[in-house]
Amino acid sequence: MVKVAVNGYGVIGRRVADAIRLQKDMELVGIVKRTPDYRAFVAQGKGISIFAPDAAGKKKLEDAGLRVSGVMEDLLRNAEVVVDASPEGKGEENKKLYQGAGVKAIFQGGEEHSICGISFVAQCDFEQAVGKQFVRVVSCNTTGLCRTLKTLDDALGIDEALATLVRRSTDPDDSSKGPIDSIVPDPLELPSHHAEDVKTVLPTINLVTLAVKVPATHMHLHALALRVRKREPEAALSAISKEKRLLIVDGKRGFKSTSNVVDYAREIGRSRNDLYETAVWRESVKEQNGWLFLFQGVHQEAIVIPENIDAIRAVMASGTKELSMEATNQSLGIGR
Amino acid sequence: MVKVAVNGYGVIGRRVADAIRLQKDMELVGIVKRTPDYRAFVAQGKGISIFAPDAAGKKKLEDAGLRVSGVMEDLLRNAEVVVDASPEGKGEENKKLYQGAGVKAIFQGGEEHSICGISFVAQCDFEQAVGKQFVRVVSCNTTGLCRTLKTLDDALGIDEALATLVRRSTDPDDSSKGPIDSIVPDPLELPSHHAEDVKTVLPTINLVTLAVKVPATHMHLHALALRVRKREPEAALSAISKEKRLLIVDGKRGFKSTSNVVDYAREIGRSRNDLYETAVWRESVKEQNGWLFLFQGVHQEAIVIPENIDAIRAVMASGTKELSMEATNQSLGIGR
Amino acid sequence: MVKVAVNGYGVIGRRVADAIRLQKDMELVGIVKRTPDYRAFVAQGKGISIFAPDAAGKKKLEDAGLRVSGVMEDLLRNAEVVVDASPEGKGEENKKLYQGAGVKAIFQGGEEHSICGISFVAQCDFEQAVGKQFVRVVSCNTTGLCRTLKTLDDALGIDEALATLVRRSTDPDDSSKGPIDSIVPDPLELPSHHAEDVKTVLPTINLVTLAVKVPATHMHLHALALRVRKREPEAALSAISKEKRLLIVDGKRGFKSTSNVVDYAREIGRSRNDLYETAVWRESVKEQNGWLFLFQGVHQEAIVIPENIDAIRAVMASGTKELSMEATNQSLGIGR
Amino acid sequence: MVKVAVNGYGVIGRRVADAIRLQKDMELVGIVKRTPDYRAFVAQGKGISIFAPDAAGKKKLEDAGLRVSGVMEDLLRNAEVVVDASPEGKGEENKKLYQGAGVKAIFQGGEEHSICGISFVAQCDFEQAVGKQFVRVVSCNTTGLCRTLKTLDDALGIDEALATLVRRSTDPDDSSKGPIDSIVPDPLELPSHHAEDVKTVLPTINLVTLAVKVPATHMHLHALALRVRKREPEAALSAISKEKRLLIVDGKRGFKSTSNVVDYAREIGRSRNDLYETAVWRESVKEQNGWLFLFQGVHQEAIVIPENIDAIRAVMASGTKELSMEATNQSLGIGR
Repeated sequence: MVKVAVNGYGVIGRRVADAIRLQKDMELVGIVKRTPDYRAFVAQGKGISIFAPDAAGKKKLEDAGLRVSGVMEDLLRNAEVVVDASPEGKGEENKKLYQGAGVKAIFQGGEEHSICGISFVAQCDFEQAVGKQFVRVVSCNTTGLCRTLKTLDDALGIDEALATLVRRSTDPDDSSKGPIDSIVPDPLELPSHHAEDVKTVLPTINLVTLAVKVPATHMHLHALALRVRKREPEAALSAISKEKRLLIVDGKRGFKSTSNVVDYAREIGRSRNDLYETAVWRESVKEQNGWLFLFQGVHQEAIVIPENIDAIRAVMASGTKELSMEATNQSLGIGR
Repeated sequence: MVKVAVNGYGVIGRRVADAIRLQKDMELVGIVKRTPDYRAFVAQGKGISIFAPDAAGKKKLEDAGLRVSGVMEDLLRNAEVVVDASPEGKGEENKKLYQGAGVKAIFQGGEEHSICGISFVAQCDFEQAVGKQFVRVVSCNTTGLCRTLKTLDDALGIDEALATLVRRSTDPDDSSKGPIDSIVPDPLELPSHHAEDVKTVLPTINLVTLAVKVPATHMHLHALALRVRKREPEAALSAISKEKRLLIVDGKRGFKSTSNVVDYAREIGRSRNDLYETAVWRESVKEQNGWLFLFQGVHQEAIVIPENIDAIRAVMASGTKELSMEATNQSLGIGR
Repeated sequence: MVKVAVNGYGVIGRRVADAIRLQKDMELVGIVKRTPDYRAFVAQGKGISIFAPDAAGKKKLEDAGLRVSGVMEDLLRNAEVVVDASPEGKGEENKKLYQGAGVKAIFQGGEEHSICGISFVAQCDFEQAVGKQFVRVVSCNTTGLCRTLKTLDDALGIDEALATLVRRSTDPDDSSKGPIDSIVPDPLELPSHHAEDVKTVLPTINLVTLAVKVPATHMHLHALALRVRKREPEAALSAISKEKRLLIVDGKRGFKSTSNVVDYAREIGRSRNDLYETAVWRESVKEQNGWLFLFQGVHQEAIVIPENIDAIRAVMASGTKELSMEATNQSLGIGR
Repeated sequence: MVKVAVNGYGVIGRRVADAIRLQKDMELVGIVKRTPDYRAFVAQGKGISIFAPDAAGKKKLEDAGLRVSGVMEDLLRNAEVVVDASPEGKGEENKKLYQGAGVKAIFQGGEEHSICGISFVAQCDFEQAVGKQFVRVVSCNTTGLCRTLKTLDDALGIDEALATLVRRSTDPDDSSKGPIDSIVPDPLELPSHHAEDVKTVLPTINLVTLAVKVPATHMHLHALALRVRKREPEAALSAISKEKRLLIVDGKRGFKSTSNVVDYAREIGRSRNDLYETAVWRESVKEQNGWLFLFQGVHQEAIVIPENIDAIRAVMASGTKELSMEATNQSLGIGR
């Protein structure tokens, strides 16, 4: 049983915590929580041990009525790996703590690649993370791109790739950020940084990305154009259908928009209606003049959760890529 | 074991079907489905028997690859009660079918009160539905208003009530309806019909309602002003806290908007993130000049599900109001 | 010719500046601008003199390519009145500057009533502002409420008033603020402060307000319930139709939502599609049990513009209420 | 003076009608209006002659209080050219009427290219429309693409072009259509038809398009990737800056999103805040590996208005391309 801590209990942290609790070879030793909100009380109700970042934070949580098991250093003392799901940009600071405590750590895509030099998508580069102290799971958009590009590069050979990312602007539980009625080029300066981030995982891919933000909360939608050597959309669909972390959805079965993909996750009973898979629309996979096109949906809250679990196994050197991915998939209902 | 059929598998039908499967005293004998979409395939994957409305519909579903157990009349022959969750306004037509088949039926709030003369909210008028052939569960807005008004009328005495309903415009899985950036007085002619509908359940309540539609998909928000005899907000909160189908949420625990209420339902692991309870904001419950105010959130997809289950028990005369509501609550995790 | 300066060139400042330029008895001596954005360049193109808040600000504007006529104190030296349209909460600080410069000032509703003790809606209390050094024009919501309440109190007698404000969340040119898909009780603690603000203008009105924010950018919508002595909706409509700063809109002529009201302002050629009038829906004006109901739309960017112009005349003691309002109306196309 | 009729007074018709009234060489002889809404009453207030489609329509308008000058055939008898701005797909039917009446006609992009075989963007193919009886002005998205592609093909040479269209879902005055919180691949089957439509104007351009719909009402945003022979973004910007119907907007001057572009049109006093130009973001124009990238915004309500005016001159053979475009530009404030 690997002892795992989760530092941060926001969008990613709370999902990773629950996923850890579903693994037969892992034990969640506790989470670090900063704000005494309903998420903390629900976690407590599930029997999760709550730690504060420090003594002042402990008082704050306790004053709000939470039972607090200690502070972060107490938690780290008892953990072998920590999943760092703290606010973006806190990673470098936390890395020192983790080094001091002698624990391994998984960072998220909000941190730079340089934080540890290893950017991770299970399907693409599990092996290089084996036994390392620090690994960075890449962002939701990067993970979604890497999965599809790896699969199709293996199947068809990709000479060149262009992706336009139509990004949801904030998460469903945030009512402060917009826009309400606007389309935002973001970043405005082209091309976007996403392609460079993909190359931290797939260095040889010839990708360019453009990105905009729109008034939606549920999923990113990627429009991909891939110049392929093997001009066979059927072969693309076949390769996609074999990869469990990609899911083919059909317009003719009612998948008309990202809304339906989220609704599907609700229907199949996924925890928090999380879709861990990248959803590729069958009808969109078409070829013309050597370009293969496709639309894919990326559930920004969920897609990196299986990668975090696999990254824990990688750094602990506890199992091969295939065994880890299969265990993760089974526990989360992926590929069922 | 009461044999129950569900006619229609949209927003309400699919939730009622799953809720029936959770009851120890009920058996879901099948659903009637019109469109061969992902919802049908997921239902089939759960082991639910699918029936078509008629022979043409059967062919359509089968051509799409579904296993179809028969047509509606086959289903009705095997059922004791049918929950009619077919498209709004189809109720009168279906009523004849149900009469012909000799089955009891539960209609939804999209139908008129006159369809059967009994409009149902478990907490308010369970007893009058006992043993009847037909009962109508009222709409989401009406159910939400009835629960709170009954609770506070019992506790404080309500002389007069004004409610402004800020309604979500469509459900999360619908990407066709708007508005996108607009506030719609609906109905424009004041007052709105909602008050009259409440009076089909609570005939003596002196209520007036106004309603608008806004660009949101997750919950209705009701702003209530109640002229009360007992001017005690604490007594109001105390009464609300005792009623399991009302849930108090706290702004200071992070419940800032309807988004957080939906997120809470995700956190506690509710099926489809359904909140069966009416959510009342603690901080909003205040008194001034004899008026008691409050904000409440109504999850339009979920709130009538427990009422449908209780209505089945009522028409089958299988248990008292208290026993039925408690069984329903336990099965759905209400009041836990 | 009254020499007027405008401090701040955001949503309100730029509209007030243009309105001043339309008055025969006023001269816009300049604006204070903080950011060298397109709004500044358009102002320069119109021939408006631009001043910076200070020397550093001057350099910033000049570096961006703007011609800058000086700093704020240069502007104030040349002005008789300044309209303070600087960011909310800066009023107290600015007041000292204005006192030092010996200029009169008009503050906006983002400041507290206590900043000068005189809160202004032309129709309600023009006279009390005559000759004063400082006057505060109230916020958009307060202005919209005051106009209607004053008109209907005069016509019908209002014993008690309840208003639910369904507020747009941000202005159309802001793409940062949300919510995207959420309804936000704001303030959560009931009742809202808006009623108290109305009483700074209409001290005897017995009003309570509740407020929510929704994902819209164009207008606030108010749902009003007024307990009236004279129970005559026709008399209400007649009184409204006589007041030029109220505008009756008809659902049967296509005014289905706030979108249509904004579109109407575009059709009639209003500058920046500004609707200076409060829009009251004819069909919504109904009476039941002594309560008169109505829906009204308030264009948050525009409604206070005529009040600012009238406030300038009031503090300068240059004309009666009737003459000022008529001059303002004519210049802005109100009541045409 | 060319006598022009406008059939239809919706989003396009009312803008074309006003633009015609601004031309020195044209006379608006009347419009055909179907619904007696506020748009009709405002048109009447402007002195525009209103015609009904037929006798029944005439009665309907008159019953609502409008003055009606006759029916469509009366109008056509007095016109030399009609701009067909009737609901999409009505063109073929109307074409027969226009042929019978012996008038020339301008159709809109909702009709097929085959309706007349000539698809028009002034800058691209004015000459081929000269003297023809029927011409089709292409849709907003097609017009926006053609202008930029023609300009950059002339300046840099385009070997291949990929465009992802992030489309607003409905117009600001429509409160019925969505989505509210969803991203919709539309069309789902890739590539989209827009590229084929561009080729009706620019037959040699090697373009592929992908399109999605998002919850916004104000502008389309296009993300373009162009494989160019001359890899010079500065030359691209220079060419764009010379073309009056393209407008360069700068992020550093506050153009962060489509909201700001619309706001700019309000600031400069455009009728109905219409932006007739395609807006290209300066910072987005970048080159990498032979691809030139850019973001452009297309105001769907406005962009085809100058093209309709030029198309009228083309079919009437009244002036060269350069003279017509310059007259149109001056009348509408383009390039000022």
